[in-house]
Amino acid sequence: MKTIKDSVHDHIDVVGVARDLLDTPAVQRLRHITQLGTARLVYPSANHTRFEHSLGVYHLACEALTNLGIEGTQAERVRAAALLHDIGHSPYSHTIEELIHRHTGKYHDDVHDLISESEVGDVLREHDLDPDTIAGLIAGAGELGQVVSGELDVDRMDYLVRDAHHTGVPYGTIDHERLTRELTFLDGELVLAEGNVQTAESLLVARALMNPTVYNHHVTRISKAMLQRASERLLSEPDIDAEQLRRMDDHDLLVALRTTPETAESARRLSHRDLYKRAVWAEMQDVPDEIIDADHETIREYESDIAESAGVDSESVILDVLSRPRMTESSSRVVVNGDVRALGEQSTLVRALQQVQRDQWRLGVYAPAEKTEDIGLATERVLGLDTDGTLVSDVRTGVRTTLDDFE
Amino acid sequence: MKTIKDSVHDHIDVVGVARDLLDTPAVQRLRHITQLGTARLVYPSANHTRFEHSLGVYHLACEALTNLGIEGTQAERVRAAALLHDIGHSPYSHTIEELIHRHTGKYHDDVHDLISESEVGDVLREHDLDPDTIAGLIAGAGELGQVVSGELDVDRMDYLVRDAHHTGVPYGTIDHERLTRELTFLDGELVLAEGNVQTAESLLVARALMNPTVYNHHVTRISKAMLQRASERLLSEPDIDAEQLRRMDDHDLLVALRTTPETAESARRLSHRDLYKRAVWAEMQDVPDEIIDADHETIREYESDIAESAGVDSESVILDVLSRPRMTESSSRVVVNGDVRALGEQSTLVRALQQVQRDQWRLGVYAPAEKTEDIGLATERVLGLDTDGTLVSDVRTGVRTTLDDFE
Amino acid sequence: MKTIKDSVHDHIDVVGVARDLLDTPAVQRLRHITQLGTARLVYPSANHTRFEHSLGVYHLACEALTNLGIEGTQAERVRAAALLHDIGHSPYSHTIEELIHRHTGKYHDDVHDLISESEVGDVLREHDLDPDTIAGLIAGAGELGQVVSGELDVDRMDYLVRDAHHTGVPYGTIDHERLTRELTFLDGELVLAEGNVQTAESLLVARALMNPTVYNHHVTRISKAMLQRASERLLSEPDIDAEQLRRMDDHDLLVALRTTPETAESARRLSHRDLYKRAVWAEMQDVPDEIIDADHETIREYESDIAESAGVDSESVILDVLSRPRMTESSSRVVVNGDVRALGEQSTLVRALQQVQRDQWRLGVYAPAEKTEDIGLATERVLGLDTDGTLVSDVRTGVRTTLDDFE
Amino acid sequence: MKTIKDSVHDHIDVVGVARDLLDTPAVQRLRHITQLGTARLVYPSANHTRFEHSLGVYHLACEALTNLGIEGTQAERVRAAALLHDIGHSPYSHTIEELIHRHTGKYHDDVHDLISESEVGDVLREHDLDPDTIAGLIAGAGELGQVVSGELDVDRMDYLVRDAHHTGVPYGTIDHERLTRELTFLDGELVLAEGNVQTAESLLVARALMNPTVYNHHVTRISKAMLQRASERLLSEPDIDAEQLRRMDDHDLLVALRTTPETAESARRLSHRDLYKRAVWAEMQDVPDEIIDADHETIREYESDIAESAGVDSESVILDVLSRPRMTESSSRVVVNGDVRALGEQSTLVRALQQVQRDQWRLGVYAPAEKTEDIGLATERVLGLDTDGTLVSDVRTGVRTTLDDFE
Repeated sequence: MKTIKDSVHDHIDVVGVARDLLDTPAVQRLRHITQLGTARLVYPSANHTRFEHSLGVYHLACEALTNLGIEGTQAERVRAAALLHDIGHSPYSHTIEELIHRHTGKYHDDVHDLISESEVGDVLREHDLDPDTIAGLIAGAGELGQVVSGELDVDRMDYLVRDAHHTGVPYGTIDHERLTRELTFLDGELVLAEGNVQTAESLLVARALMNPTVYNHHVTRISKAMLQRASERLLSEPDIDAEQLRRMDDHDLLVALRTTPETAESARRLSHRDLYKRAVWAEMQDVPDEIIDADHETIREYESDIAESAGVDSESVILDVLSRPRMTESSSRVVVNGDVRALGEQSTLVRALQQVQRDQWRLGVYAPAEKTEDIGLATERVLGLDTDGTLVSDVRTGVRTTLDDFE
Repeated sequence: MKTIKDSVHDHIDVVGVARDLLDTPAVQRLRHITQLGTARLVYPSANHTRFEHSLGVYHLACEALTNLGIEGTQAERVRAAALLHDIGHSPYSHTIEELIHRHTGKYHDDVHDLISESEVGDVLREHDLDPDTIAGLIAGAGELGQVVSGELDVDRMDYLVRDAHHTGVPYGTIDHERLTRELTFLDGELVLAEGNVQTAESLLVARALMNPTVYNHHVTRISKAMLQRASERLLSEPDIDAEQLRRMDDHDLLVALRTTPETAESARRLSHRDLYKRAVWAEMQDVPDEIIDADHETIREYESDIAESAGVDSESVILDVLSRPRMTESSSRVVVNGDVRALGEQSTLVRALQQVQRDQWRLGVYAPAEKTEDIGLATERVLGLDTDGTLVSDVRTGVRTTLDDFE
Repeated sequence: MKTIKDSVHDHIDVVGVARDLLDTPAVQRLRHITQLGTARLVYPSANHTRFEHSLGVYHLACEALTNLGIEGTQAERVRAAALLHDIGHSPYSHTIEELIHRHTGKYHDDVHDLISESEVGDVLREHDLDPDTIAGLIAGAGELGQVVSGELDVDRMDYLVRDAHHTGVPYGTIDHERLTRELTFLDGELVLAEGNVQTAESLLVARALMNPTVYNHHVTRISKAMLQRASERLLSEPDIDAEQLRRMDDHDLLVALRTTPETAESARRLSHRDLYKRAVWAEMQDVPDEIIDADHETIREYESDIAESAGVDSESVILDVLSRPRMTESSSRVVVNGDVRALGEQSTLVRALQQVQRDQWRLGVYAPAEKTEDIGLATERVLGLDTDGTLVSDVRTGVRTTLDDFE
Repeated sequence: MKTIKDSVHDHIDVVGVARDLLDTPAVQRLRHITQLGTARLVYPSANHTRFEHSLGVYHLACEALTNLGIEGTQAERVRAAALLHDIGHSPYSHTIEELIHRHTGKYHDDVHDLISESEVGDVLREHDLDPDTIAGLIAGAGELGQVVSGELDVDRMDYLVRDAHHTGVPYGTIDHERLTRELTFLDGELVLAEGNVQTAESLLVARALMNPTVYNHHVTRISKAMLQRASERLLSEPDIDAEQLRRMDDHDLLVALRTTPETAESARRLSHRDLYKRAVWAEMQDVPDEIIDADHETIREYESDIAESAGVDSESVILDVLSRPRMTESSSRVVVNGDVRALGEQSTLVRALQQVQRDQWRLGVYAPAEKTEDIGLATERVLGLDTDGTLVSDVRTGVRTTLDDFE
């Protein structure tokens, strides 16, 4: 057994297969991938990594398994999957996940190859665990996969509390101990036991409050978009391919951007927090559907059109279109008067949160500070937005450019 | 200056008139009034008092005043009102407030008499402050009264955080520092500055989550109702009147109940947490309007009728009807794109919370454990409830009989 | 099983005999005994009770038992003893413990009578546990008694952390989780496993820092001494005896003091925090040995002599002599290179702390504010102190009259 | 004004010159320098940076200045110095500071060149502040320099609390708010006001407990020594010099080590936490004085001799000799009975802590796991240590190889 001190869960005991997995390069690499990517440019204390988060998810999985009465090989599988669930992340976590996916067809939870072809697979096999089964659990397959990846998984219980601890934003403070205690299986579904509608609601409320404040804060989004564009450009270099990029860590990527002439200026801007500003920040109702649903190629074409219309080089325009809000947690299952129900059916609050997400959606166009006005006007012309001259409009949610640092 | 160490706000500096008010009997008495009344029977750590809360409110008022740029006599008045705002509380805070009001016509924030006829008045006059003006601020009068008692007052900012700290329930963890920073006056109204719709929402969400978990937890309500009934009986004793009861502290009331033969059994039950149980726990839609809106006398008659129908003595039946939910905070004012708007108009989430409150409303009938079944059936007959035999029904909110202790 | 939410340890599961003991009057009574007695007059947030502390000690005992691999009846006994360990406390915890002892011969951990003659004994017998064995464990008897009452017991692990949480003073923040993890039995002795000299030291350092700041703060001591004197006077009333006093709770005692004419003024002073002040605050080296070691009767005679010499009534003088410092924790056993050693032998720091305790020792003489000067001079004459006119001298430790509130 | 959310101090307002300094590359660079260097290999959550620490020091400096009543240009200078005080750090903070010093003659607080020749100097001059004066304050010059760099500086107040928050080790939890409140100037010396001997002691106790647990944990030291050796080797490469190394950030250095063939294996070991182990861990009394006081060259010769004697290559041996313990904080000044005294004279506890530091001192020899035995024996022969075959001896302090992760 190995005991590790964690700033969120205090002592974490790592046992069995997890103990051996801990020392593999694939897991140690997570020490070098920040949990929140560019959100640290908004919240300077948010430097926590996927490594400590993975330990936390492992820890909560252990708690949940004990409460669920699951033991033996089944439990060992879930514990392995919990510790490994994030090894597929590319540098800066979700930041360049879409880019990697476009080139490799893989999202971060698709790790069959990573597991079977590495030391991780060897360790699993030594413990008589099948690498593919573990990869399946990580992707949410089967009954027990729900503990690791599902609407009520221990992943989000850890990250909400951990992100709150490190950003200093109190909204993520959920009652994770109660959540892991009240999980139960009913007819093969992971559900919250009777009397926990509110416990489930609090999880969604936490997410809804953390979203605009942290995860989708406009500075997080601007710097994320800048990093995406720079990484995309890096991929056009002859000596780097998407598979390599996928397995870099944060250090590798940042230094690669710094030392490649085509991306050096972006790297400097990101390193020194000399960021683009918003030229447009438009609500869903003001944006035509075909733009919301446009694919990557089309978006790049819009960018060129806007740049041309504004008379600037195309590097100066970033069009950032969030995908339509989903709220998968609203399908969380809770027991009410003996029946299993979807939280979204049961809860007035959760239905409202779905609308809230649509209210919070924003399309952003970002540009160097001195060009925002021209590019904002050009965007209106090209995309046909009607924002009444209010280029940065926050009528509905009033989630501002909040604290000044966050500009 | 006096500096006091507080478990929530760390060091609190008490200066000026507040320094002198601190030593008056009326303020020191608050050391002996628990903040949450009977909620300590659900959350054993929740023994905090109105004294520390009053210091906290004073502290946040100082912060808000600094941020608002209010100084001099105006500020001194608000600081005095903040420290004094709860001196009108009877024992166990809100628990017997309605009873006191029926006999004296006074709620806890009606303190003109208490201030002018006591040492408090002397201290205020020594500092050239008018007692009646301060009493007015405590009741929310005038522009500055909103800081002490209004939809965005520092009172609720303190109690949410403090109640979370002491109960251990994380839902009250709001960003109080941001709230006091973003307060501003616009056309005589206290509002939250641009970009704070979500800050305001988080305050209401915290309340909405704390309500069923703490403030209206059924054990809080049962023990509160038992204490109300016993106190009412105490008032029928010859040697005690409502004005005396109003000025007792928690110790006085509990010992009076213990030593008065008619109330000794109630006192024993409350002291040893040997409480009544729920015979009925009905949702708003299942309760006829005339019962929801019945006055105190009518409710006592219903109790007698239920007791008679069940063949038990009338002491064994407590009918507990919550008043219809209001959500005064939804009229909080926020600035959105330069206009002042009511939060309830602006926010999808807040509108949902109003429905949530109705969902959470419950009518309770409480009785000794061994009589709950008979009294439950009698209640259905007398009140015409239709609860399908589900005497304790929590279909809608699923706020359970949560943790077992809370039974 | 019952689960209780605690502000320090989060969720506490109460099972087996503990579950049934919880509802006994003897345990519920602890809800009405404050943990720190009069320290709440220094730290307004410190209103926590022996009840929540007892739950905490029970919780840490469960953790320690799991780590020690102790199960079955043995563990059940320790859990019962942990939950019951404080039921012998008189009102205001240690405040009047000496007074009770002089009259009944019993300290708070002598509970054979309380257990066997109450519902507690019935519950234990129903669970096939012998009441006398449990009372023995509470007094520290036998190998397992050390877990409940010994140098490394879970009692002090809980109270240091809990007192820090509620006072706001950070010094008690020890690593209690590590402490319970590292306990082990070696040759029948409870010891800390190899590598924990510093873990043990941190426990003593925490105590050494909390002592003058909280437990022996001069305002804590003054108010404690006033409460002792008043309670002593109460015992001279015809209708109250020491055995009754022992079983009162805080409410009973305070109201008894208020309603007894001879003690009403003391009760008023304590309720309104209108306390005596220090007339003398002398260091150990300036106080003759026979005074340090004087018994209660002799001290009362000194008080009379001082009062007479100062020309005041004897009620106006309180002579408060702390017993000589012991540091029982310095005999804590730790494993070092395979041998069991006493911490005091092993640790330079712990030896220093023993000297620190002597440095911090103070003799106090307290009096109404307007009489401190006369009584200070009279004390010098009567006791032969030589304090160079520095009546309140803090040369050595500089533990002041710290924050002003604490005056 | 800019407001930044910090996980330790909540909201930090950045104003005046600090506001403009914040955006300079020299300050933004600190986002990429970890506060604790390799301690994150022991405590996975300890990923905080010099940037957030610098903001914290700035914040505490503001608090201290307000309490000291210092305003205007003098205060502006101190605030600038506080924010800039760590810009001279090389990658991984103190880790390679000695190496840089050997080559450039500069320690991290010698920043005259960095300030005057960069944007920082421009910003200072725009605000009419003299770059050299600010550099002087950072080095502790003058009366006000003590606030930034001295025995009672705000630097250590921030780092103790911050390191505790991020490692999860509670020992650093000091009462920093009280410390900044009690600072005062007496005859040009920064001292703690009357009654704060214990406040000062708690600061030293916190350091004494954090030292072996965090700062000098043997895994911190092993990985630090490995990083030093690798960086030294990097400097022998033709295309890198010490001045460049000094201005790298953590990313640059780690990637440089990875991509340089001579250091790639060290980089791999550090990245994957595949560290050397202890071959020797000897106490001060067992180590000859000439070894304790040996200079860098001599130590490298010892290493060669040990390697030769053990028959291994010299890369396999790292000899790590801590400098003799100083305890500069023991010269902190406190006011006692009106006189200024050095804490070390006044406090029994502080004198003990000086001995504790000597007890905790260890000489380490580190090697690949499979070679520790041979190298341990060779070390005894070459250095003439007499460790009774106990190569890893922790007799005196028992600060172990504590938790297993820390191996």
